[in-house]
Amino acid sequence: MKIAIVGGVAGGASAAARARRLSEAAEIIVFERGHDPSFANCGLPYYIGGEIADRQKLLVAPIQMLIDRHRLDVRTRQSVEAIDRQRKRLTIKNLVDGTTYEESYDKLILSPGASPLRPPIPGIDLPGIYTLRDMRDADRLHEVALKAAQVVVVGGGFIGLEMAENLVRRGLRTAVVELNDQVLPPWDREMTTPIAEHLRSQGVELLLGDSAAEFVKRGAGLTVKLKGGRELPADFVVLSVGVRPENALAVTAGLEIGPRGGIRVNEHMQTSDPDIYAVGDAVEVRDFITGDAIQIPLAGPANRQGRIAADHLFGRPSSFRGIQGTAVVGVFGMTAAMTGMSEKALQRTARNYQKVYLHPTHHAGYYPGAERMSLKLLFDPENGKLLGAQAVGVSGVDKRIDVLAIAIQAGMTVFDLEEAELAYAPQFGSAKDPINMAGFIAAAVVRGDGKVAHLADLAGASVLDVRTRTEFEGGHIPGAVNLPLDELRERLGEVNRGQRTIAYCQSGQRGYLATRILAQASYDVANLSGGYLTYCQSMRSAGGTAESMQRTTFPNLEAAIH
Amino acid sequence: MKIAIVGGVAGGASAAARARRLSEAAEIIVFERGHDPSFANCGLPYYIGGEIADRQKLLVAPIQMLIDRHRLDVRTRQSVEAIDRQRKRLTIKNLVDGTTYEESYDKLILSPGASPLRPPIPGIDLPGIYTLRDMRDADRLHEVALKAAQVVVVGGGFIGLEMAENLVRRGLRTAVVELNDQVLPPWDREMTTPIAEHLRSQGVELLLGDSAAEFVKRGAGLTVKLKGGRELPADFVVLSVGVRPENALAVTAGLEIGPRGGIRVNEHMQTSDPDIYAVGDAVEVRDFITGDAIQIPLAGPANRQGRIAADHLFGRPSSFRGIQGTAVVGVFGMTAAMTGMSEKALQRTARNYQKVYLHPTHHAGYYPGAERMSLKLLFDPENGKLLGAQAVGVSGVDKRIDVLAIAIQAGMTVFDLEEAELAYAPQFGSAKDPINMAGFIAAAVVRGDGKVAHLADLAGASVLDVRTRTEFEGGHIPGAVNLPLDELRERLGEVNRGQRTIAYCQSGQRGYLATRILAQASYDVANLSGGYLTYCQSMRSAGGTAESMQRTTFPNLEAAIH
Repeated sequence: MKIAIVGGVAGGASAAARARRLSEAAEIIVFERGHDPSFANCGLPYYIGGEIADRQKLLVAPIQMLIDRHRLDVRTRQSVEAIDRQRKRLTIKNLVDGTTYEESYDKLILSPGASPLRPPIPGIDLPGIYTLRDMRDADRLHEVALKAAQVVVVGGGFIGLEMAENLVRRGLRTAVVELNDQVLPPWDREMTTPIAEHLRSQGVELLLGDSAAEFVKRGAGLTVKLKGGRELPADFVVLSVGVRPENALAVTAGLEIGPRGGIRVNEHMQTSDPDIYAVGDAVEVRDFITGDAIQIPLAGPANRQGRIAADHLFGRPSSFRGIQGTAVVGVFGMTAAMTGMSEKALQRTARNYQKVYLHPTHHAGYYPGAERMSLKLLFDPENGKLLGAQAVGVSGVDKRIDVLAIAIQAGMTVFDLEEAELAYAPQFGSAKDPINMAGFIAAAVVRGDGKVAHLADLAGASVLDVRTRTEFEGGHIPGAVNLPLDELRERLGEVNRGQRTIAYCQSGQRGYLATRILAQASYDVANLSGGYLTYCQSMRSAGGTAESMQRTTFPNLEAAIH
Repeated sequence: MKIAIVGGVAGGASAAARARRLSEAAEIIVFERGHDPSFANCGLPYYIGGEIADRQKLLVAPIQMLIDRHRLDVRTRQSVEAIDRQRKRLTIKNLVDGTTYEESYDKLILSPGASPLRPPIPGIDLPGIYTLRDMRDADRLHEVALKAAQVVVVGGGFIGLEMAENLVRRGLRTAVVELNDQVLPPWDREMTTPIAEHLRSQGVELLLGDSAAEFVKRGAGLTVKLKGGRELPADFVVLSVGVRPENALAVTAGLEIGPRGGIRVNEHMQTSDPDIYAVGDAVEVRDFITGDAIQIPLAGPANRQGRIAADHLFGRPSSFRGIQGTAVVGVFGMTAAMTGMSEKALQRTARNYQKVYLHPTHHAGYYPGAERMSLKLLFDPENGKLLGAQAVGVSGVDKRIDVLAIAIQAGMTVFDLEEAELAYAPQFGSAKDPINMAGFIAAAVVRGDGKVAHLADLAGASVLDVRTRTEFEGGHIPGAVNLPLDELRERLGEVNRGQRTIAYCQSGQRGYLATRILAQASYDVANLSGGYLTYCQSMRSAGGTAESMQRTTFPNLEAAIH
């Protein structure tokens, strides 16, 4: 068996190593256009920022190890230019000397990855506008960052924010421009508010809902002219506005391609040609929840796809279950993580969903260092099936999203979360863990015990603030009437029966208790999910003027969130 | 509906609050023998040690809140002495004035908890021998610890180790005596080695496989005479050798009791009298995996049982799914956690099981601060169903055990772990997370790709060390032959075909690759699971002389584990 693999990083390297474990006899050739067959691309921003000081550490599988240990024929600086599917032969260009040669294959695995987008903005080809994909890009940015004073990052997704953090760490004045009205576009907007505010508190200038209209040379550097009119000086620019599958080879070979450019594969990672597999960021995969074809560049799935392709070409029935979009990003010590579907993704489908918000501490509140997180859970209101989750906070965020990722993988419901038996000691969690709390709250909704309301429901309702007077005076929802929970039973008569009542407290718990009291007294009542904290996160996520207005009205909220 | 609840902490308080949420009309009386109806008992050691400086923080639900918010009739210092099940009346003794009175009930919930064991050791009633159960105990220990210089903790379970850490924090010379030949008896012995060694490195004198034979007065303090002959001076003693269900009230009321003293309940937490429920540490519950009746005192399940009892007495079908024994303990910055069945528990059943060990880093190895953890996975070798997991390390241990706890709850297999899509960024995990790695290794065993061997299999086998020469020279398994992995293919002839070969490396990965190479060349070969690290943890877990011997032979292991 002669196996050719195009592209070494993540999926390609995994496929090669797996193929060798399955067959000592196979001939395995890895063609890599770049200099390094396998490097830690998720670590590149941290190398640029200096957090990873030793460049060598990024070379997770040095060539010599691939040769000595896995007996791979690794050919760097070799670009596969064409596939002759009839003759099962590849045309390869040696990028060092420019020569071209052919190589046959029995099975071919494409792992070409995705390349950073360079949108056709005037001035895009000026020097000093960088993207980040490989070690050479990282080396270049590492070098320019050391000499620069100010930088503009275009794009506020994962890479954009990681770059911003690392450039600030290098001492650069950093601005981030993001087309969307939020950072981290895969998350729902209100869940990104704490991250956006934290970025600003760390000195990052964040320009949301704006984009680069033109790049202009300015001395040794550039000016970034934004659509909104601002002109940002920059010694250099980092472009991180997304990636595009590297499908050129697959297209010219006549393989099926999806509408967004991803190479089409079946569950065994086979392309439309059964002797050709494709894995990683270049392929279109199935959304685990909706079944839709999607493209999400993630390192974990790329690695697993590589294994699956190698398994299958040796006759094993391995198959890929799809991607559920689990992701995490750290920004200046805060963490945002998600799994499954976002609310905005659900809104694009016909699926019925409900959501709850909560703001639990990451471990027992009585143990020092407890940090509040915000958690959003999306589920099917009919049967409680979990659809998605997002969390943002300082500690324990990745843990809860990993737990929920497994729960979604298992097809669990909100009722299962109620019953989850998680590891508890006061440093690690709570006897009622945030996962259990999310389950309790969502299960109450599904059972009909605890109706929830959201921001959009406030209009036309009678809004009841059940917090203490002091909390109410510190800031409240406009039009709300204050009636502290502990006095509610005695003052029930003051609650307007003629109208739907929406009760709220700081984070949702007292609001729920108020809802129970009122519902038992036959009031039409719902609890504002996530309480005042979620309300403020939602209002402030609008950005710009609205945000600064809200900030002055609710001065102590920052402390409450962090 | 008149509901009486006996005992306030955890289960009782949860039941009371839940009952109120379900019914504004119910009369709910909570009888609590102690002074505080609801306090954070898991936090007591940290209050004694000073980590929790503010005593008030431990009072999670102050009486006034239970009254104002939940309208509970909370009666502290009231001891329920008898239940007249015919007349549905309780006899209560007021511990303040010694008077006795009766109270009727429609439904009764028993949440009496468990009391610390005081074994009949000579001298056990001397002053200065303390147990830890409630706030008063904690106050007393807090006070004596401030004046003492040396202490003996009898019992090396959760509470014993948490107390040891906190007493060292107070500056006390601390010895821990444990009857078993390991700390943390619920864990398998080899998984506790890093914790035991870490305790010793922090100055704790650890006496395993020994026990207190007699306590003798010595000046203002005590001498603890051990069975093994040692005499330990102590200003005071902390007894933490387990708990016993507080079943006296249930026994005299004629309720069914299990063989180990736990009050017998059905899945709705009903005792043999359907109008009486019991929850928390006093009840016997079902092991989620084996279905056996067990008693495990855990705060999380106690809370959930309280909810379930309250639900059910209002006619809701809530039921308790059983306990799977998820637990975590922090000791001087290290963490040990487990879920599901241990190997020793499996050995007591007829169930077929297999195990694998691994030593992954808690996040990407190339990102600074990566810490190695040891992980043990137990599963069914026929179908791959997960049976249990244990982990020990510095960071990320609780996260992996929580993920595995959910996977066990969902009935998942090792194949599901291979496919788990967890949140990855280099600060949080790896593209191949420890969970995925555990799945890969265990799935290879179930599929027959990667036979594993364990310590007991070494006798009679030809042992092959596939690490580098330098690693081999730093310490190896007696009798092992060194043949570095990268040279194995050329030197296959040197491997003895006449005997079964067990290959090993440092943590198991190279050993697996060697096994694949040899198996494909038709050798009878298995990989020593967990490699040299697990071997050393197993050997050193024997304690005493054997341990010190192993320690001198393997001087650099400590660094490798931590």
